Amino acid sequence: MTIDIDYFDLSGPDGLKAAFRNHATGIAVVTAADSELNPIGFTASSVTSLGSTPPLISLNISQGASSYPHISTGKLVAVHTLDAQLLSLAQKLAGPKGDRFLADDFEIGPESVPIFTEASSVMMARVINKIEVESNAVVILALESAHVTRICEQPLVYFQRGYHTIGDRLQDNF
Amino acid sequence: MTIDIDYFDLSGPDGLKAAFRNHATGIAVVTAADSELNPIGFTASSVTSLGSTPPLISLNISQGASSYPHISTGKLVAVHTLDAQLLSLAQKLAGPKGDRFLADDFEIGPESVPIFTEASSVMMARVINKIEVESNAVVILALESAHVTRICEQPLVYFQRGYHTIGDRLQDNF
Repeated sequence: MTIDIDYFDLSGPDGLKAAFRNHATGIAVVTAADSELNPIGFTASSVTSLGSTPPLISLNISQGASSYPHISTGKLVAVHTLDAQLLSLAQKLAGPKGDRFLADDFEIGPESVPIFTEASSVMMARVINKIEVESNAVVILALESAHVTRICEQPLVYFQRGYHTIGDRLQDNF
Repeated sequence: MTIDIDYFDLSGPDGLKAAFRNHATGIAVVTAADSELNPIGFTASSVTSLGSTPPLISLNISQGASSYPHISTGKLVAVHTLDAQLLSLAQKLAGPKGDRFLADDFEIGPESVPIFTEASSVMMARVINKIEVESNAVVILALESAHVTRICEQPLVYFQRGYHTIGDRLQDNF
């Protein structure tokens, strides 16, 4: 049997959004220091491994994001993986930029990068390339070092426009 | 308080892997036709939206993957989102390449692209750029059309080196 092009009845922004609602993503928080060494950061659902030898990370960001000018080539960035118990941190770093670093819940790390030590892991990575595509960008980072606070059992997962925990383990893949 | 660089006690491939085990990802299946119009495809944990206006998708792939030569600029590709009930499809498309298209579980779509109609959604997208970074590549695709088979309630999620279902909904984010 063959499938006609008419089968694909959605297109444009609505088509993309409808399909991606069916796709789960992990939630991370990305931080850096701006040119005056003030903390900046944002919640990201696009943090992905780009191979481990050498260890690389990719993430997508809108060029319109307030953090975008500060995620420049050569900049050191902290990528935090989040447990479900850190939902409020994810929400805060996705909220108004003036509210993101008001609380006393972060420390200052290498090159003035703010570090949320409650994160299940933190990867320190340097921006090595930024590929602008339309109004967005793919940022490529080289891992320099990492800290794993604990083996996460309940990661924060985004799906169908909401935050979730993880469910049953179906199958190992060692 | 400040955090010393010694706090980040991991590095290299092991550091990246340890941190990413704490991070959940959605599982997708990506397919295309090779130059002889035979079906090729693979399971991907890196499929990500790259903005909706215009609708773009990114995914990461190893240059050593058997599918890599066929995911070339201009090629039409199908990106399938998977429910947890499609675990066996994810495993098959991550297994030996000779076994991936033996069964009668796919149809032939536009430009000979194989389509798994059991997927919760299928996005038809064209490769517009491929950025090679070390031994991997970031592939940028422009969405052309999409089909949503159903509103997925149980996506297939990868975490701590295993396949999972989704858990409790913690918070809407409309």
